[in-house]
Amino acid sequence: MTAVVREPADFRRACDEARGRGQRVGLVPTMGALHAGHLSLIDEAKARADFIAVTIFVNPLQFGEGEDLDRYPRTMEADLEGCRGRDVDVVFAPDPKAMYPDGFQTQVSLGEITKPLEGEFRPGHFDGVTTVVTKLFNLTGPSVAVFGRKDYQQWRILSRLALDLDMPIEVVGCAIIREADGLALSSRNRYLSASERKRALGIVTGLRAAYDAWTGGQRNPDTLRALAAAPVEALFDRADYVAAADPETLGAPEDPESRLLLAVAAHLGKTRLIDNVVLGEDPRP
Amino acid sequence: MTAVVREPADFRRACDEARGRGQRVGLVPTMGALHAGHLSLIDEAKARADFIAVTIFVNPLQFGEGEDLDRYPRTMEADLEGCRGRDVDVVFAPDPKAMYPDGFQTQVSLGEITKPLEGEFRPGHFDGVTTVVTKLFNLTGPSVAVFGRKDYQQWRILSRLALDLDMPIEVVGCAIIREADGLALSSRNRYLSASERKRALGIVTGLRAAYDAWTGGQRNPDTLRALAAAPVEALFDRADYVAAADPETLGAPEDPESRLLLAVAAHLGKTRLIDNVVLGEDPRP
Repeated sequence: MTAVVREPADFRRACDEARGRGQRVGLVPTMGALHAGHLSLIDEAKARADFIAVTIFVNPLQFGEGEDLDRYPRTMEADLEGCRGRDVDVVFAPDPKAMYPDGFQTQVSLGEITKPLEGEFRPGHFDGVTTVVTKLFNLTGPSVAVFGRKDYQQWRILSRLALDLDMPIEVVGCAIIREADGLALSSRNRYLSASERKRALGIVTGLRAAYDAWTGGQRNPDTLRALAAAPVEALFDRADYVAAADPETLGAPEDPESRLLLAVAAHLGKTRLIDNVVLGEDPRP
Repeated sequence: MTAVVREPADFRRACDEARGRGQRVGLVPTMGALHAGHLSLIDEAKARADFIAVTIFVNPLQFGEGEDLDRYPRTMEADLEGCRGRDVDVVFAPDPKAMYPDGFQTQVSLGEITKPLEGEFRPGHFDGVTTVVTKLFNLTGPSVAVFGRKDYQQWRILSRLALDLDMPIEVVGCAIIREADGLALSSRNRYLSASERKRALGIVTGLRAAYDAWTGGQRNPDTLRALAAAPVEALFDRADYVAAADPETLGAPEDPESRLLLAVAAHLGKTRLIDNVVLGEDPRP
């Protein structure tokens, strides 16, 4: 039985009761529009915890002006069906007013790790993410929280957040789930026209070229970055970044002989897609 | 038996074990140099909880440049004696490096409520307070946390913090404890020379004048503020502020007929003292 609650107090009570029964609580925060990537996060949570809480909340704080808050897909009935199919214990789907009542004025923000990549192109985005996730952590009291590595920087930030604020929560990052042709699953893929959908493969084509060069011994970050960038520049309307970065700090590569993050954000029409691979760690995308 | 721990993991374990035994945990965060005001906070925590945790940490994050971080009084042995005398269960006295290890980069900050009064004269101070208290809340998992109302704005901010971040913690503010002659107890009082100690009474003299006028029916915030300010201006080297403010928002008085905060910060030599009264709520200072 999947309970669906809208009030923070009801959600807290459900999680408290689970912990009171001695269960480990696993949290999967989402913005809804669930796809197979989200379902893999739920599976991972189920493998690590006894009581699974999924949150569905399109968090206005993490959308900037001109971003897609208003048109972000809402598919609540299908999302609940997906959660029921996975035997999720509780789904928390609050209204924004319940999360941010009048007088709300607290912000949780991180430093250096939030500045590059997404931070450069989505100012304020991560402040919104870290603030809402802190609230969700505090409502849930999870032993483990599961996020997707497609939002690689977000995952690293939330790991740092839990560490810095002494939250006793294991922050797990799950592998990117891809379509058969390699496109990373994203709730935003549904925005793509048929021709954009084809051009969207430019990202994974580039990441694969870099991956293959790495496997062949190439360790020069600039060379690898350029291999990843070429098909993006050829096929997308514009790229925000195609970057080679350190997988921990998200800054300049510190040990590119052993591990290197390649991260991409690029636009097709009104749709912005992101993807990444950690060379030296991830399988071929 | 009062346990004394220095490592965050040990402190967390002690509090976890108490909660595991079904005890309510009460937290009293301090910067040490304990006086009777702090002891009254411990007493309040004991009345509301089963397991009492006192933290002693001079938090560098909440001191600005040129403030008294280096000379802030450290009286650890006497502090521990005081805690033992009150049957405190655990004292947590970490090193700064344990609270802020390399790579630490998370900040918790509030908005409007942190801007006036102390916020105007101690930029960054409340960011340091809210960040460290969030960490202490997360390490402790208290049902109740107790603070002194001498730091009135801090108490309101921390109440708002717990509410905004969905921390299930009752944030209690305890009445100011005063010397026989009315001076509010403060760890910083020990900085005062004999003559400064006499002039320090200017604050409470002003607050009493305002209190008596309020009792006599005076409700004009400017008039009440002026009554509080006169002896401060006469006796102190300089005042940072003598303000009439709303007791909830800390901004302009919203309902000065029913309740009004008078708050003072002023300097005697190198020593900065604060004090306050909520007219319509507090007893005569």
